[in-house]
Amino acid sequence: MKQLFVTEVRDFEKNTMGKVEAREVSMPEPADDEVRVKVIYSSICGSDTHTLTGHLGEFEAMTKAMLPMPFGHEVSGVIDKVGPKAEALGYHVGDKVVINYAKYCYACDNCRSGHENLCNYVQFCMNGFAEYACYHVQQVFKLPESYDLETACLIEPLTIALSAAEKAKISFGKSVAIMGAGGLGLMLVQLARQAGASCVTVFDLVEDKLELAKKLGADYGFDPREEGVVEKAIAAAGGKYDCVLEGTGAVSAAETALQLLARDGDGVYFAMYGKDPILKVNLHNDFYWDQKHLHGLIMGSGMFPKAVKMARRLDLKSIIQKVHPLSNYEQAFADLYTKKYAKVVIKMDE
Amino acid sequence: MKQLFVTEVRDFEKNTMGKVEAREVSMPEPADDEVRVKVIYSSICGSDTHTLTGHLGEFEAMTKAMLPMPFGHEVSGVIDKVGPKAEALGYHVGDKVVINYAKYCYACDNCRSGHENLCNYVQFCMNGFAEYACYHVQQVFKLPESYDLETACLIEPLTIALSAAEKAKISFGKSVAIMGAGGLGLMLVQLARQAGASCVTVFDLVEDKLELAKKLGADYGFDPREEGVVEKAIAAAGGKYDCVLEGTGAVSAAETALQLLARDGDGVYFAMYGKDPILKVNLHNDFYWDQKHLHGLIMGSGMFPKAVKMARRLDLKSIIQKVHPLSNYEQAFADLYTKKYAKVVIKMDE
Amino acid sequence: MKQLFVTEVRDFEKNTMGKVEAREVSMPEPADDEVRVKVIYSSICGSDTHTLTGHLGEFEAMTKAMLPMPFGHEVSGVIDKVGPKAEALGYHVGDKVVINYAKYCYACDNCRSGHENLCNYVQFCMNGFAEYACYHVQQVFKLPESYDLETACLIEPLTIALSAAEKAKISFGKSVAIMGAGGLGLMLVQLARQAGASCVTVFDLVEDKLELAKKLGADYGFDPREEGVVEKAIAAAGGKYDCVLEGTGAVSAAETALQLLARDGDGVYFAMYGKDPILKVNLHNDFYWDQKHLHGLIMGSGMFPKAVKMARRLDLKSIIQKVHPLSNYEQAFADLYTKKYAKVVIKMDE
Amino acid sequence: MKQLFVTEVRDFEKNTMGKVEAREVSMPEPADDEVRVKVIYSSICGSDTHTLTGHLGEFEAMTKAMLPMPFGHEVSGVIDKVGPKAEALGYHVGDKVVINYAKYCYACDNCRSGHENLCNYVQFCMNGFAEYACYHVQQVFKLPESYDLETACLIEPLTIALSAAEKAKISFGKSVAIMGAGGLGLMLVQLARQAGASCVTVFDLVEDKLELAKKLGADYGFDPREEGVVEKAIAAAGGKYDCVLEGTGAVSAAETALQLLARDGDGVYFAMYGKDPILKVNLHNDFYWDQKHLHGLIMGSGMFPKAVKMARRLDLKSIIQKVHPLSNYEQAFADLYTKKYAKVVIKMDE
Repeated sequence: MKQLFVTEVRDFEKNTMGKVEAREVSMPEPADDEVRVKVIYSSICGSDTHTLTGHLGEFEAMTKAMLPMPFGHEVSGVIDKVGPKAEALGYHVGDKVVINYAKYCYACDNCRSGHENLCNYVQFCMNGFAEYACYHVQQVFKLPESYDLETACLIEPLTIALSAAEKAKISFGKSVAIMGAGGLGLMLVQLARQAGASCVTVFDLVEDKLELAKKLGADYGFDPREEGVVEKAIAAAGGKYDCVLEGTGAVSAAETALQLLARDGDGVYFAMYGKDPILKVNLHNDFYWDQKHLHGLIMGSGMFPKAVKMARRLDLKSIIQKVHPLSNYEQAFADLYTKKYAKVVIKMDE
Repeated sequence: MKQLFVTEVRDFEKNTMGKVEAREVSMPEPADDEVRVKVIYSSICGSDTHTLTGHLGEFEAMTKAMLPMPFGHEVSGVIDKVGPKAEALGYHVGDKVVINYAKYCYACDNCRSGHENLCNYVQFCMNGFAEYACYHVQQVFKLPESYDLETACLIEPLTIALSAAEKAKISFGKSVAIMGAGGLGLMLVQLARQAGASCVTVFDLVEDKLELAKKLGADYGFDPREEGVVEKAIAAAGGKYDCVLEGTGAVSAAETALQLLARDGDGVYFAMYGKDPILKVNLHNDFYWDQKHLHGLIMGSGMFPKAVKMARRLDLKSIIQKVHPLSNYEQAFADLYTKKYAKVVIKMDE
Repeated sequence: MKQLFVTEVRDFEKNTMGKVEAREVSMPEPADDEVRVKVIYSSICGSDTHTLTGHLGEFEAMTKAMLPMPFGHEVSGVIDKVGPKAEALGYHVGDKVVINYAKYCYACDNCRSGHENLCNYVQFCMNGFAEYACYHVQQVFKLPESYDLETACLIEPLTIALSAAEKAKISFGKSVAIMGAGGLGLMLVQLARQAGASCVTVFDLVEDKLELAKKLGADYGFDPREEGVVEKAIAAAGGKYDCVLEGTGAVSAAETALQLLARDGDGVYFAMYGKDPILKVNLHNDFYWDQKHLHGLIMGSGMFPKAVKMARRLDLKSIIQKVHPLSNYEQAFADLYTKKYAKVVIKMDE
Repeated sequence: MKQLFVTEVRDFEKNTMGKVEAREVSMPEPADDEVRVKVIYSSICGSDTHTLTGHLGEFEAMTKAMLPMPFGHEVSGVIDKVGPKAEALGYHVGDKVVINYAKYCYACDNCRSGHENLCNYVQFCMNGFAEYACYHVQQVFKLPESYDLETACLIEPLTIALSAAEKAKISFGKSVAIMGAGGLGLMLVQLARQAGASCVTVFDLVEDKLELAKKLGADYGFDPREEGVVEKAIAAAGGKYDCVLEGTGAVSAAETALQLLARDGDGVYFAMYGKDPILKVNLHNDFYWDQKHLHGLIMGSGMFPKAVKMARRLDLKSIIQKVHPLSNYEQAFADLYTKKYAKVVIKMDE
């Protein structure tokens, strides 16, 4: 079977982007408690982009040591083979499924008190850009028969968006500001709407993405580089924002987020940030007087079942702006590098 | 009747402390919706201390313009006279009461959605160092007949401690770190214990206060100036702290608090801080990886009824380390300036 | 000015409905802390219907003693005159407003711990079917200038719907069943959608109302008299319901609600029920095995500010199925008696 | 090795109690993902009592078919042998441990959204009255080295008590009523105290247990058969109870619990009840006017890590009123049948 590998990361000195290569590998076999999934769609995540186009910082040496490195973790597919223990738990050949690439131990205190995202022994199974992949049954989530597999590959990032939306305590009548109109930002726009937000404002550098955000339910869109943009965004909403979500990974966006946040508001920071990314919080103004709440977030926990239910109530189709067959994977990554598309997806089963 | 006034604030150039003076003033009369309270005990708050001994910064001019300034807002007493509207709401002469010095409007959105502490039209009634004082009935809370009025004057600061404890989400099995073993810190030690904390650690510069904290339920006490104190405190608890409460107003304590905080932990900052008090938060380590939650807090909201119930379940007597009669008020403030006593109280009815 | 009064309640022996009469009364004058509202729209509540068409049971004698009885409590209008204390709190002549007919004391423990709906001294101001009415400033909520006053008169019932929706813990991916497609039910359909429900099912006796419910976002509509309706509704949603809301006041609906409720689900009962209305809960099946949560609810608390924000995000216009001018009030009540219309509204300012 | 088996259940016709027998069985071997525990203490649960002394109702045939039936699920011990997968997750020979007898699948939606107690594929491992027992690593919880194993065998029931206490929303200043002063009731008294209750009242038929409850922190104890007991208990607390916990399984206690519950209070029903156990709830009085919240509860979820931390902060020693060596197991069950002892424990390693 075919599988994609990262063979080179970005080289800033040579001024080259990362490279991806399709290779022929042997078919994996599921263990007793595993299922083998025939992958149908696999989506490119922002973190993949980062690996291929960004500064890896302290992770550079480690990443290079892993080359050629399998990757891919936003996956939908169909069960193709199933171990007996997995079958006993109700998983059968032919079931449509999505995957949690994080394999939790369920034997540490974090896992067993509702915080799997902080699992002490978590393993990340990054093998989703392959025609077939095996996963422990505890990582597999069944979809209803009628489910659309193309949009289903966005269920994994949707779990993050759901987790961020919940931490931000979006609810009836609250105003919401979202930094970034990429895949997660465009999901958040829709989730904010479906959580009862009275006003949704989005920030992005790309005009087209702001337009798409508005089509998907945002009331206002702003380019963060615009002069006086914080004041304008506050005026548009009739006041500072009750909920602010920052997932861009830019420190400037993190600062803007803090400025936008209302008294007693909840700000959620769920991005990975580069080296030494410092946010300066004013203890008197932000904490004492304004009583702000700032929440970190690393992925999600317990979100897959609800993500499976919610994916069908969102317009994920509009977020997927390019779909390429596996044979055309080079174009998929070329498209990615343009940064023009919210989500680029590869159809794995030609 | 007699009332205390601040007549001078601290002068750093002349190297003088603030001054307090007792003056004879006319007896106040309650309006229809007010009660007049014969004040029995009035406690000196840390913010009073600040006015008398601290840098007032940007508030200096304003404060000086208010001199001679009435003050005092931690009050217990007995209703002495009552307006007819207040009487109709069940308040009668002879009722033991405590006071919320904050008078809320109950006509703004904050007041009417459970956030009175953010009231748009709040008025602060600082007239508690007087033999008699009038308050709107909505500021008055009745005590059971058998209540001890001496400790009752600490119910107002207890509302802040309760609010901080709740925001910190102390619950069964959590470890708790408390910065400062003053009045609020010593209440928090006890509240942490009564909220199910499995480990309580306190930080203070004064050895005696740490000892008192331990007597009141703390497992560990540390001087924050000790070398390697963060590591030691973490080792004592067997890990970082699930809940951290910072009420000292020192930026260094705010930094220590952040370092002590565990993954997914809740840090509460409820102090007033001086000019430009910046806390540097690492977006990647603190927010992404550690998923910390940082909460500001300005006073409390909706806490008086439960503070009335809880005051009797705490040892507040041990926190009150000096009680002076009104005639001896000069000694009370002299004691205060020594910074040795958690709480100094003035008995107002000689 | 003109004001409507209930002059007779239903007489089951004589087989007559209640009677409403317009009478000329003197213009009310606002007190210092009150505003006078020129009422523009006033909506007929289900409880008004009950008074006019239902068995009053134990309330019969009391109600008859109050005749002729002013009524009306779903009101929108414009401030016409304002007392000085109200003005100081930001209320001015010309402001568009809605009213909370419940006047809370803000001097009891319930009011001052976030439970105004349980106020010990609450007064109900039922004088909204009048050309002018006075209210304490704490009962008045300002609307943005551009607000539509016709739909605004539904903000008061919307506060109840919001409160019920929150108690039911509707959130991302949950299935929701709503008993009754009257005014509140049709709001709840929309709120469930905006709270992230993955499936919304409504029950009503009237085919047209079920159709309207679907138009407003319901996935399924059922006549509760249909055979096997519980099983059908469960099959439609693919399982029992996570959230069930019962506001019809019929014991049979309360029973159906309990049967529809899923394991660990939340059922909210917010209706007024007749005499001796018993719901039989199976302690073993419902509570132990299914871990159901059953919540009572009496009106709402702290909901007006968010109702003002949410009203514009709902389609309330479709819920108002009849609007009559004050001069035509007799027709309004005749329409009401047909039970065909979700909401009948009277325009008070001809 | 030796293991206890139920060989006969109660026979009401012959008027015999159940029988327990020690048998010699072969030593179990742990699978790759299992550990073998040398059991040190094993406690007798109320449900064991029920099997041996009660009406089994619809479970009678099934239970008889399982005889001779292994049992025991409140276990503390030391790891004696460990499979390689379990070892890789940090479990080692010599570790002190406790056990969750419920083995969750972690592959169904309930398990993976924080509701393991509702697991679709849960298996109950009832083999704790044995010298050695094997468990999947996901069922095993490590204790600190210094832990006392005798009280540790109560950690499993403590998870239920913690879960009930949390569902009841006990917090600062609330009054709490607890039906029954057995093992769970006596834990709840202490947990209520540690959750900030301002008043704790306990009901039990046995005078000695009420005395023990008071020693452990209850303010008041009542015999539920006393005349006017509901009124007396309400008078003692100065009002109805904010939180009521019913774990006796008696319908009469369930009714009393409902009567004791205050407006907006939370009642938790966590017992197994017999056949057709109906609680009559008044929709108007209990739900509309009093806005009560009634919660079912089936065991706990995510509670073991915090139970391990809390067990050391409770007085569990006083709850264990009899400890017998395995050789004396017949006396242990004889003691149990007297119903005089809150907890009877068997020491398994002679």
